[in-house]
Amino acid sequence: MTKEVMNVPRAKKTEVVSQGHLCMPEDSRKRASRRLAIARGHLESIIRMLDDPHIYCVDVLRQLKAVQGALSGAGEVVLRGHLEAHVATAHERGDTTEIIEELMEALKYT
Amino acid sequence: MTKEVMNVPRAKKTEVVSQGHLCMPEDSRKRASRRLAIARGHLESIIRMLDDPHIYCVDVLRQLKAVQGALSGAGEVVLRGHLEAHVATAHERGDTTEIIEELMEALKYT
Amino acid sequence: MTKEVMNVPRAKKTEVVSQGHLCMPEDSRKRASRRLAIARGHLESIIRMLDDPHIYCVDVLRQLKAVQGALSGAGEVVLRGHLEAHVATAHERGDTTEIIEELMEALKYT
Amino acid sequence: MTKEVMNVPRAKKTEVVSQGHLCMPEDSRKRASRRLAIARGHLESIIRMLDDPHIYCVDVLRQLKAVQGALSGAGEVVLRGHLEAHVATAHERGDTTEIIEELMEALKYT
Repeated sequence: MTKEVMNVPRAKKTEVVSQGHLCMPEDSRKRASRRLAIARGHLESIIRMLDDPHIYCVDVLRQLKAVQGALSGAGEVVLRGHLEAHVATAHERGDTTEIIEELMEALKYT
Repeated sequence: MTKEVMNVPRAKKTEVVSQGHLCMPEDSRKRASRRLAIARGHLESIIRMLDDPHIYCVDVLRQLKAVQGALSGAGEVVLRGHLEAHVATAHERGDTTEIIEELMEALKYT
Repeated sequence: MTKEVMNVPRAKKTEVVSQGHLCMPEDSRKRASRRLAIARGHLESIIRMLDDPHIYCVDVLRQLKAVQGALSGAGEVVLRGHLEAHVATAHERGDTTEIIEELMEALKYT
Repeated sequence: MTKEVMNVPRAKKTEVVSQGHLCMPEDSRKRASRRLAIARGHLESIIRMLDDPHIYCVDVLRQLKAVQGALSGAGEVVLRGHLEAHVATAHERGDTTEIIEELMEALKYT
């Protein structure tokens, strides 16, 4: 799944490439992780809600929507980091077609 | 948040009403809970992935998409149970306007 | 595609049933039609934009998003009318399972 | 709205830049235009459907979904062209931050 990169300019290597792969920028990684931890907590509280036989459907729908919003927010962080670190430099690396094909595929059915 | 129901016909009481509230059908509750437990496991594995500095953005996007699909599936279970247990009987209970207003609001920005 | 209805109470017949079918409430039909006429005008203006070789991609994306919002708005009008006129009365008619199956199918992949 | 570009390398000028602006690649423009013309035809047929008082809500929802799919397809064509022609070359032009900010903003609330 990871993207092989052979001849990447030195300067960018520390940031986004390691062991011949494009890697997620650390800042995106940390921010996405924090958001997902919050989403997990929220998801756990919905699972506990569902143990209560008096729970009302629409309240569950509302909470699910909130978690989906949190996941979309995390996805936005990851996408932005990918565009900045890897897509914006694709023409220089010479892998524009592949990297965009891969991204369009991953974004499908969002 | 819960929906007050005063004069609900006796027969439906055991299923979907308790203590004067509309309640989620047990079957939906159990099925939604199982799906969300799976989604939680998947979400936890993404959070662990994000500890690895060699992770690649597009792999994270793909995993996030899978979790969002699982949450949508759980939402579908809840919505179907709500339509069957509460919306399809709204005209008999006499709260059609309120129950549909509430549902449309909850579905917004899906 | 249309939903056969045999023994519908007389009073609702004029509104939502004709020739043995469930029909869209007139108010929803008129409101959805107006909204779609506006969306069509907007869509035509995007098609004209695309004749201009100097057009910028992101401007087209923004306009497409606006038209998609207008279509969602029209879909919301139709869904609300359907819930009020046909789903809320399903238990009385005795076709709850079929009408909800059909709706869940139509809402899929929104 | 359009993106000012001052010092773009000569070679790419013919394709994607004109009069100091980034312009949509001709191929995307033509393909998006053809898809939107089809979507317009489909939308017109829904507007005609809505003149018929016997139309059924769920049939309208299904047709609306088809048009929304066609618009998403056109949006995908435009996005792909933008990523290839403008985002993949952003680092070379030196406008990575601006072009990604602009794109993330345009994709919001998809």
